[in-house]
Amino acid sequence: MNPQTIRKAEIKLVRGLLDLVVLGLLKEKSTHGYGIITSIRQKFGVYFGPSTVYPLLNELEKKGNIKSEWDLTHDRPRKVYSLTAEGISLLTGVEESLYQICNRLNEFGMNRLRFNNPIEDPLKVNNVVSI
Amino acid sequence: MNPQTIRKAEIKLVRGLLDLVVLGLLKEKSTHGYGIITSIRQKFGVYFGPSTVYPLLNELEKKGNIKSEWDLTHDRPRKVYSLTAEGISLLTGVEESLYQICNRLNEFGMNRLRFNNPIEDPLKVNNVVSI
Repeated sequence: MNPQTIRKAEIKLVRGLLDLVVLGLLKEKSTHGYGIITSIRQKFGVYFGPSTVYPLLNELEKKGNIKSEWDLTHDRPRKVYSLTAEGISLLTGVEESLYQICNRLNEFGMNRLRFNNPIEDPLKVNNVVSI
Repeated sequence: MNPQTIRKAEIKLVRGLLDLVVLGLLKEKSTHGYGIITSIRQKFGVYFGPSTVYPLLNELEKKGNIKSEWDLTHDRPRKVYSLTAEGISLLTGVEESLYQICNRLNEFGMNRLRFNNPIEDPLKVNNVVSI
């Protein structure tokens, strides 16, 4: 398979998990938008530019999952983002969902996705919602 | 946090991983479109309807990752999808990417996402592409 095809699929995957990635980065450390763009590139090997990251930050802030403050200690003021209690709670929930999804995929024979801790609380199939 | 908020985030997460989920289901067993819709609902607890799943199947077929054959043994002919060698190769690549992403998230303190097998081949940060 063409490595470019795998690469495209990888970028699509990180894009699909971008909320989780941004919340995770902000859990580790409060930072400004450019810091987030740099961390995604350094830690996940994928470059998402301001046109992707800034609208996502605005959306997460509007929903109350992150908050921002102006950092005026530099020549150019910068908005610094941090997680709210709501954001921490959301992150924990999404982390659990990703854990459950990986466990399911592992059951389909994806042997790489086997976690240390056994599954405790499988997805409830009667909890189906239409979207 | 409102359980509905977590639920929405979970649906968004499964949507972001839908290529992988569909390829994974077809690796387990060749099936028709409705079978895929049912399996996603049963195994991942989320309902994605024909308007989401069928275009995705068409796209995966067009890219050569899955192929279809008509099953004429029923009253109503049904298109049955199966993975191609390309699709298996893509699935292995995407599985590896998801493994790497979860490992990174685990490093940020997401303790649930700890795999059995230690990380062997970290994402190469010099392999950055712009999108």
